[in-house]
Amino acid sequence: MRLHVAFHPSLLATGAQPPVPITRPQVCLVVDVIRASTTLVTLVERGAALIHIASSVAAARASAAARDGAVMAGEQEGLAPPGFDYGNSPVEVSRAEVSGRPVVFVTTNGTAAIRAVRALGPVLIGALRNATAAAAEAVAWSQERSCDLTIVCAGREGAFGIDDAYCAGALADRILRHGTFEPTDGADGALRLYRTEPDARAVFTRAAAGQNVIRLGLRHDIDYCAETDASMVVPRLGRELRMLDDGRTDG
Amino acid sequence: MRLHVAFHPSLLATGAQPPVPITRPQVCLVVDVIRASTTLVTLVERGAALIHIASSVAAARASAAARDGAVMAGEQEGLAPPGFDYGNSPVEVSRAEVSGRPVVFVTTNGTAAIRAVRALGPVLIGALRNATAAAAEAVAWSQERSCDLTIVCAGREGAFGIDDAYCAGALADRILRHGTFEPTDGADGALRLYRTEPDARAVFTRAAAGQNVIRLGLRHDIDYCAETDASMVVPRLGRELRMLDDGRTDG
Repeated sequence: MRLHVAFHPSLLATGAQPPVPITRPQVCLVVDVIRASTTLVTLVERGAALIHIASSVAAARASAAARDGAVMAGEQEGLAPPGFDYGNSPVEVSRAEVSGRPVVFVTTNGTAAIRAVRALGPVLIGALRNATAAAAEAVAWSQERSCDLTIVCAGREGAFGIDDAYCAGALADRILRHGTFEPTDGADGALRLYRTEPDARAVFTRAAAGQNVIRLGLRHDIDYCAETDASMVVPRLGRELRMLDDGRTDG
Repeated sequence: MRLHVAFHPSLLATGAQPPVPITRPQVCLVVDVIRASTTLVTLVERGAALIHIASSVAAARASAAARDGAVMAGEQEGLAPPGFDYGNSPVEVSRAEVSGRPVVFVTTNGTAAIRAVRALGPVLIGALRNATAAAAEAVAWSQERSCDLTIVCAGREGAFGIDDAYCAGALADRILRHGTFEPTDGADGALRLYRTEPDARAVFTRAAAGQNVIRLGLRHDIDYCAETDASMVVPRLGRELRMLDDGRTDG
């Protein structure tokens, strides 16, 4: 079986000659480490009943209005939209009162990445905080189905994000220890990148995504996102997560 | 001024928040190191009068038929199409008789990458063989115009190619020595990747593009593509190169 890393959802192809798009069946790990993946892991840890993922604030508001006791979390240009209970800050969410309550969560890049792969097979959420657990569960699904595994980086609108690539390398490092996967070019690249720096914070604070969070005065979020293997929670689409958008809830 | 690296032509955005596509003016270095960039450098070294770049064999044949003494070179699934004088093998081309003759050259990924950036500003061809020379000329253009510099990796159809990313890192390494450029996420990633391995052949022989060339029995091409700073030639669109396609010759 092969391990792919797509540094952006637009790069979901294997690189084979002739070209082969990555198709079903496929186990996918979606990474948006600063900060949606990390926040989702934290929301599940805090006991959220079910997380409904929306790609727009309007869709989130409509959905929350229809759900009793729903909590609204997420971001618009980095901060909580007006009327939301929480932003997309994992540190803030780590103290949130969400136990047993449905959560409606808004993210842009993360939602696009999930949507790009939802039809391929099981979709899991990966971050540094749950790196070993996410790798283990992805490997288990992949072995169960005898299918390839793809790590998909959310990236930033239309661009590569070094934070996601680094996190993909951390996941690839753990996945390849299982010995049954052959890394393709993207996985090889992510792994090399990951191994250049033992301290995730050094990469994250220089990354465009990290710089943006720091500008908002949320530097603690970077430290939190950089903590590795602090959690055993692996959010999965169809289990802890649902997609809200375009009227479908099949996620 | 900033130094960007786009690991694929589809990732031509800066990663800023809100999203900023990479726009004019911009100096671009196009990298398709295995093998189109390397072959183009070699064709210019061999004294080709003018290289017309085509994205299809049919367009190349039509163009060559209309040019006295034209040489046809390039590839279709890695080998020279029927009736062509040369393939896309830089080793073969390094012995080619092209001095003073027009060349029609067919490549797929390389052509797509050039087309993606041709409207942004000067377009130069970068490889390992001309790394220092290409970096120096790109820096000169960028300083002359006070504009950003983008290295665009051709990649493989729809996917990341580690060979191009590695070469982009070699170019970024040289460009950043000039001290006037700020690396964005992609440049930081390419640079880290490059610094993991001093021997380009180790990366190239594992890469999907390299594996393909080796399967064709052309392993010497990999060694040739991996030779660093063997050439001072920097092909430029509008000088040594012209785009043939879509009826335009404005290259």
